[in-house]
Amino acid sequence: MVAYDLKSLLEKVRKERPLVHNITNFVVMNFTANTLLAMGASPVMAHAVDEVEEMVSFARAFVINIGTLSEPWIEAMFKGGRKANELGIPIVLDPVGSGATSLRTTTFRKLIKELNLAVVRGNASEILSVASDEIRTKGVDAAHDAGQALETARSVAKEIGSVAAITGRIDLITDGDTVIRCNNGHPLLGRVTGTGCAATTTIAAFAGVTDDRLEATSAGLAFFGLAGELAAARANSPGSFMVSLVDALYEISPQEFQARARLEEA
Amino acid sequence: MVAYDLKSLLEKVRKERPLVHNITNFVVMNFTANTLLAMGASPVMAHAVDEVEEMVSFARAFVINIGTLSEPWIEAMFKGGRKANELGIPIVLDPVGSGATSLRTTTFRKLIKELNLAVVRGNASEILSVASDEIRTKGVDAAHDAGQALETARSVAKEIGSVAAITGRIDLITDGDTVIRCNNGHPLLGRVTGTGCAATTTIAAFAGVTDDRLEATSAGLAFFGLAGELAAARANSPGSFMVSLVDALYEISPQEFQARARLEEA
Amino acid sequence: MVAYDLKSLLEKVRKERPLVHNITNFVVMNFTANTLLAMGASPVMAHAVDEVEEMVSFARAFVINIGTLSEPWIEAMFKGGRKANELGIPIVLDPVGSGATSLRTTTFRKLIKELNLAVVRGNASEILSVASDEIRTKGVDAAHDAGQALETARSVAKEIGSVAAITGRIDLITDGDTVIRCNNGHPLLGRVTGTGCAATTTIAAFAGVTDDRLEATSAGLAFFGLAGELAAARANSPGSFMVSLVDALYEISPQEFQARARLEEA
Repeated sequence: MVAYDLKSLLEKVRKERPLVHNITNFVVMNFTANTLLAMGASPVMAHAVDEVEEMVSFARAFVINIGTLSEPWIEAMFKGGRKANELGIPIVLDPVGSGATSLRTTTFRKLIKELNLAVVRGNASEILSVASDEIRTKGVDAAHDAGQALETARSVAKEIGSVAAITGRIDLITDGDTVIRCNNGHPLLGRVTGTGCAATTTIAAFAGVTDDRLEATSAGLAFFGLAGELAAARANSPGSFMVSLVDALYEISPQEFQARARLEEA
Repeated sequence: MVAYDLKSLLEKVRKERPLVHNITNFVVMNFTANTLLAMGASPVMAHAVDEVEEMVSFARAFVINIGTLSEPWIEAMFKGGRKANELGIPIVLDPVGSGATSLRTTTFRKLIKELNLAVVRGNASEILSVASDEIRTKGVDAAHDAGQALETARSVAKEIGSVAAITGRIDLITDGDTVIRCNNGHPLLGRVTGTGCAATTTIAAFAGVTDDRLEATSAGLAFFGLAGELAAARANSPGSFMVSLVDALYEISPQEFQARARLEEA
Repeated sequence: MVAYDLKSLLEKVRKERPLVHNITNFVVMNFTANTLLAMGASPVMAHAVDEVEEMVSFARAFVINIGTLSEPWIEAMFKGGRKANELGIPIVLDPVGSGATSLRTTTFRKLIKELNLAVVRGNASEILSVASDEIRTKGVDAAHDAGQALETARSVAKEIGSVAAITGRIDLITDGDTVIRCNNGHPLLGRVTGTGCAATTTIAAFAGVTDDRLEATSAGLAFFGLAGELAAARANSPGSFMVSLVDALYEISPQEFQARARLEEA
């Protein structure tokens, strides 16, 4: 097992309630905000070019999620991102649907190139799309396994000088050298929209309270996956599972998190 | 009863997981995506003019929902729609609030005229609005019964050379000649926002696995209505009903669907 | 206790089902619509400049919520607002995040100046931001208590010649002279996104059935707070609390509302 002090990390989120500024897609905005509130962080959603710099300056972390793109939003992502970089606020990028359309793939690649990113989290197909035009995802669901994307994730991590994570049945997190495997999670997470996006914002909440990005990413994915496990113990179908998932994000104690996170060096 | 093989149709959705591309309104995006995931299909939401053609080309069905219109979205609806027509991908149109404002009524009429639609599903007032400027709905709720709109639905079906459906206390589905009546449903569906829109996307999921549009529309409305009945057996108030509805979409077995669909020729 | 006939007021909402037109933010649109449907009113969401005047003309109340601003939406708010004023339709304003960015603060002040508002409802920091540039909120959560904002709320009420309300642990409602204190509510409301926005739309539903704006605002906040109390009696965590909250909005009887509202002159 990896020796992170996850107990202290979760206590810190709940005590400091880091503000996470999200430019995220229309489909998941509500669920993303409720994820942050339930786990103990503080959400704000703002995408207007005219206010994004001001808003991000209060934040402890900034999420860029490309799930429903349009020109003015892309402009706001870069504007907010440059401000975050200037102020040293960590940016967590979720390249939703990259590989499905060239607008998304191009935007993903440009964000990697022009911003200083703390974490990139995607499914295997999204991560693979950064390097190859042959990768075509069907909509926003992965057509590949995490293992297939590991080498690309390593390259992404090296290029951004930080951390890339591939989520799926198992999750792989890497800084380019070390690879951490997260075994928390449950298949029902794939039956609720926005769980990938919510995992991303969970990483951002932890990145708001620690500078160790490998730790923040591992903590976020283990925490969200554990919430999925606890929800599945109470609910067998996606409607009630989604409700129990939010409950679990609120209920997991720091001790329980430390005890039940399943992180190991791969 | 109508002799559809609904068992095989639902099995096919769950096996093939058809991708349904939705341009739908902000209010219901999350619920629409969760409806598709729960029943076994695969959702994608994309509305940018720059990517709509590329995204729709992967899809098995395309939903156009006019619930929150704006100029760039209207452009994307037509652009995506023309591409879908070119590729033979069925388009299911939901004219939310047509009759309430001339922007909506005009857009509805233009979509019927310029695109080749597979299915139009609306409430009675929305369907009536296609033919008469006297129809004024109060917001997005119907002010008429399905029966009052049947003749207009027949004309719409003939004009598009396909299927029109009116939903309400009972649902009527017609290809211009045959009329099928669907008796599944529950009044609590009217107390949750987006259930009409979710019924539309359910039709699209079935239209992704069968070319018989009368069958796809009947299956979609019976399936969604049955989920409402099962949810109402567990929950008496709209918050928990909405959760049980999503659960039911996941839980209904192909056998149960076949046994409990209430479709008859009218 | 304040001697309002809350029983009749709720009966009126459920009988007349007032249409409430909302220009509200992306995060809360679904929850806002479900709040109105559950309590017995009728929601419509429409923000396009091209249809906002037509839509608002059917409505019994108009909500302007600045939670996710952009230029075209600001234009629609003023256009819809002027039409509502012309027709005597009450406008309820929710200045979400005012004080956090100058776009929001400026828009809030301009809406107060240029429109004839029936009710302004915000948290303490948002209300304070109308008068002072020193107020900086952290995102959309209040950094002040209701009491600290009372004098500013009085000034706002006098300036608009109507009612201002500050919500928080306790709520204060004032027309500039009289101050009513609402003691209904529960801390878990702060753990679900959009509960402030939903309280605002609840006020609008009551403003659709009574011309007494102090009464409508008091009724809305007491009703929504009471729903929070009932939900907390059933659920201890935010996911299931949110579901029970919607259930409670539907289940509270007029008698129960009258008996359990905790309104008093301060």
